[in-house]
Amino acid sequence: MSEHDGIIGVFDSGLGGLTVLRAIVEQLPGEATVYLGDTARVPYGTKSAAVVTRYALRIAEHLLQYPLKALVVACNTASAVALPALREQLSIPVLGVVEPGAQAAIAASVGQRIAVLATEGTVRSRAYERTLLRLVPDAHVVGRACPLFVPLVEEGLLDGPIVELACRRYLEGLAREIDTAILGCTHYPLIAGPIGQVLGAGVRLVDSAFATARALADLLVERNAISVCEDPGKSLPRDLPERRFLFTDANERTAELCSRFFGEPIRHFEAVDL
Amino acid sequence: MSEHDGIIGVFDSGLGGLTVLRAIVEQLPGEATVYLGDTARVPYGTKSAAVVTRYALRIAEHLLQYPLKALVVACNTASAVALPALREQLSIPVLGVVEPGAQAAIAASVGQRIAVLATEGTVRSRAYERTLLRLVPDAHVVGRACPLFVPLVEEGLLDGPIVELACRRYLEGLAREIDTAILGCTHYPLIAGPIGQVLGAGVRLVDSAFATARALADLLVERNAISVCEDPGKSLPRDLPERRFLFTDANERTAELCSRFFGEPIRHFEAVDL
Repeated sequence: MSEHDGIIGVFDSGLGGLTVLRAIVEQLPGEATVYLGDTARVPYGTKSAAVVTRYALRIAEHLLQYPLKALVVACNTASAVALPALREQLSIPVLGVVEPGAQAAIAASVGQRIAVLATEGTVRSRAYERTLLRLVPDAHVVGRACPLFVPLVEEGLLDGPIVELACRRYLEGLAREIDTAILGCTHYPLIAGPIGQVLGAGVRLVDSAFATARALADLLVERNAISVCEDPGKSLPRDLPERRFLFTDANERTAELCSRFFGEPIRHFEAVDL
Repeated sequence: MSEHDGIIGVFDSGLGGLTVLRAIVEQLPGEATVYLGDTARVPYGTKSAAVVTRYALRIAEHLLQYPLKALVVACNTASAVALPALREQLSIPVLGVVEPGAQAAIAASVGQRIAVLATEGTVRSRAYERTLLRLVPDAHVVGRACPLFVPLVEEGLLDGPIVELACRRYLEGLAREIDTAILGCTHYPLIAGPIGQVLGAGVRLVDSAFATARALADLLVERNAISVCEDPGKSLPRDLPERRFLFTDANERTAELCSRFFGEPIRHFEAVDL
């Protein structure tokens, strides 16, 4: 099997990583993908690094049943704490969202004064901070945990007074010390509007999803491992690349939440027991 | 070993069940206890019945390493969906919080118009509804899922505008059709104040924790299996009964949250990997 035939594995603690998968599908439309959401154990953001690493390794082991050519850790918390262990165990390239997000923030920032808005686990890990300071040693980095944002988005509360109050609770006054904010959790782009309202027009918001898909595209080009869709204008229509969706738990709300994050309905998903 | 020597096992998806343990410790001060909080997989309220049942059985298996004389399922979601499977597998008495909570609500209610405020999993299971209707067939029962309440309490937001808005979101207008509301999740008693403010003085709030501890005491008396503390006024001081605390995950916040739910600091806890 050549690397052209391999598929892209993507995993997340739950459904939020579907925003990363969406960016990958848009930037790399020819790649087949398999997504695993660990919905039975979501959220990771409140759990310890040891537990998150154990779960991430178990997921990677399961995904290696597929002919992966790269694995994307779409979960910020898992990217922040489990990447070294995953890279040690796996022989394929493993990409997290932290490094691409940090690079995008540095590119977007004028004064290198950057906030990391994320779960408690991600902030506690200081992974973004370490990466930013490695890239720009004199950057000013502020970590800000926003634990209510995930439940608000999962509840479908994307605007309105509760979301506004939560944004004010975490972010008021922050604009005085930063010019850029990383949306360091896959759920946060869905409330970028109210977040931006509190931070004001002087603060740029950076979403790791787009930057991660870009980094994956660069990697595949570099390894000459990209799968290209035939140009539909020049050839006969062909099947779209396969998209598999695996979840460790699924209930009545899963399909609805999937559409919210992926931006289109997911018709078929498979249950896995890890 | 006589049943007097056995200990009481209590488990929950996380830390909320410590409110039930607190009620047990107050009503049965002579009983040794072992508490297991499945903090690595919390919350259960958003997960499917099949997954919650699998976790509950695994926890019970672990707790049976101790000489249990009864097992209390302090988690409303697990009580709602996993009790039949637990009772089938275990040879000791298994108590949930749903039956005692439902009985307490019926005793408190004047017109048998009762709301069940709970997680999505508990509401979806209709366990409270089935129990209430079995006890009072013409009761009027309303289930109301309040998914933001758990993250608010875990964030330490027990009052203030965000909590008030969340209470209004779920509960406004509900008082017109009920006279009693069951706080059907172990976290909810901590925001009983703001919940009561929205529901008004005409609605009685019922907390399953006290009723469950009462039911456990009745069971132990009935089986002549109660452990009695010596009266400290009449005898030499003796050691307090042993209290063990096991968690599947623990981080910097665990100790602080434990105190919030248990009402006193927990000095020592053990990690278990299930």
